[in-house]
Amino acid sequence: METDFVAWLTARLPADRRLEVPLGDDAAVLRPPAGRRTVVTVDMLMEGTDFILRADCPPRAVGHKALAVSLSDLAAMGARPEAAFVAVALPRHGGEALGREIELGVETLAAAHDVTLAGGDTNAWDGPLVISTTAIGSVAPGAAWRRDGARPGDLIVVTGAFGGSLLGRHLAVVPRVREALAIAARFPVHAAIDCSDGLSLDLARMMAASGTCGVIRLADVPIHADAVRRAARDGGTALDHALGDGEDFELILAMPPEAARALVAAAGTPPLDLPLSVIGVVEEGAGLVAETGAGVRSPLEPRGYVHDFGS
Amino acid sequence: METDFVAWLTARLPADRRLEVPLGDDAAVLRPPAGRRTVVTVDMLMEGTDFILRADCPPRAVGHKALAVSLSDLAAMGARPEAAFVAVALPRHGGEALGREIELGVETLAAAHDVTLAGGDTNAWDGPLVISTTAIGSVAPGAAWRRDGARPGDLIVVTGAFGGSLLGRHLAVVPRVREALAIAARFPVHAAIDCSDGLSLDLARMMAASGTCGVIRLADVPIHADAVRRAARDGGTALDHALGDGEDFELILAMPPEAARALVAAAGTPPLDLPLSVIGVVEEGAGLVAETGAGVRSPLEPRGYVHDFGS
Repeated sequence: METDFVAWLTARLPADRRLEVPLGDDAAVLRPPAGRRTVVTVDMLMEGTDFILRADCPPRAVGHKALAVSLSDLAAMGARPEAAFVAVALPRHGGEALGREIELGVETLAAAHDVTLAGGDTNAWDGPLVISTTAIGSVAPGAAWRRDGARPGDLIVVTGAFGGSLLGRHLAVVPRVREALAIAARFPVHAAIDCSDGLSLDLARMMAASGTCGVIRLADVPIHADAVRRAARDGGTALDHALGDGEDFELILAMPPEAARALVAAAGTPPLDLPLSVIGVVEEGAGLVAETGAGVRSPLEPRGYVHDFGS
Repeated sequence: METDFVAWLTARLPADRRLEVPLGDDAAVLRPPAGRRTVVTVDMLMEGTDFILRADCPPRAVGHKALAVSLSDLAAMGARPEAAFVAVALPRHGGEALGREIELGVETLAAAHDVTLAGGDTNAWDGPLVISTTAIGSVAPGAAWRRDGARPGDLIVVTGAFGGSLLGRHLAVVPRVREALAIAARFPVHAAIDCSDGLSLDLARMMAASGTCGVIRLADVPIHADAVRRAARDGGTALDHALGDGEDFELILAMPPEAARALVAAAGTPPLDLPLSVIGVVEEGAGLVAETGAGVRSPLEPRGYVHDFGS
């Protein structure tokens, strides 16, 4: 019964100073941090499209991923996560047990990032599992990282390594929340986006929004070991996997050159104990350009995942 | 293509003073109204469960309903709507046209209530239509109407009339936003809930949260003409339909007696140009009691829609 599930959920959740009215009413009432903007992102994941429930993808992992992709969006805005809401359509048979497992995955990640779970909507139906997450964060006025602020001369910096996420990382998403906050506190960032659909595709989106051209130095793209593994299996190149696989959920940043170099030099100290790489430069123009180690340039067609419709 | 849809959407939406970063980035950035709390509600509607797409339920009506149920939740908190986010899982074939129609339904209702559409998530899949709405409102600190504040001696006041919503009103939901704001500005309200699942069930929820008993004077329950029509068809009573059908999306309020009487006396002047009725009283105890015109009392089992799971 829905009421049992909500009672179970309500009993689990700790009180939180940010909530004037917690889960269980018609809506939650949040105390927004004084003098800050409210950042909101919504993501929907569908069984069969975004995940397939099976032994290596248990419902707890789905709950983790659902919140993680939304926290990654907040990270890409340089925002601090505050609260989250989870709406689910659960299969009628076995739905309650499934809902509890999903909630445990959500809850563990929320606790790790001091996010209060403030509400949601629990439904049963005869369809596959659907989960929609709303994450709410805060940021100082004017400080949000937009995707349209890249300027010619900026360097393109990325966190982590890319490609092959389908081998498992696409579920165990690590949202770069702490990294983003540490960077925002110390370095100027002109533009940011998270890599959800593909490094080249998401960078192309940033360039299109900014009215600039992105030059990627192919030799400098950090390639994940999973990209090498996938390439070995399918006969493609690891670089192609890095450029187009997506679901890496790393940050792509456009920064003034001196700031970019200082950031990369700061790598190693927590929370920046992860690879930080300059992979290219922003220039006047449009689209993407690939530059080889020998300095040869050619247009680069962005590749990645597009949620396409039939006609 | 998703990108075409987002471009279409972005071009339609007017600039809004409340948005520092509008739709089209990783997240939206809102300027929260100074000195107010943030109110958040999330609702998910699924094809086949909450609606069936057909001639008398076009996608535009689904878009309307999706936002309307969330605005009704904000109204039940006494909150002013500010922004909304819509996530959809669209069937792959014909999904884009469907998405545009849904958006038009959302957009019209949003404009009517000065709600800015600030973002969402558009997906295609092989399943039925799923739509999840996040509505964000604001309210003065401590002023939100909770469901746990009813006190013995309060009168129970409802807007509108109940029952038979399945004949069409369950789609053409009129969220009581203006009414709630007008009431909140002029009258003390101890507790509130909107009637989504059934008058008796939602009142029972308020009583359970408040630790009180609700006495409903059956002769005073405002019965909708649709309840009479449904009763004529199925041989039940119109009163039973009024008490248990749900999806009326009217407000149920617990108010001090003098305030309740003053509110009912104020009916007729916009935005309070709708029926306002005292249907009972809050007493010590628990659960619901039905009182006949002759003053005979008996326990009333709450009835309404519960999103139940199989075992």
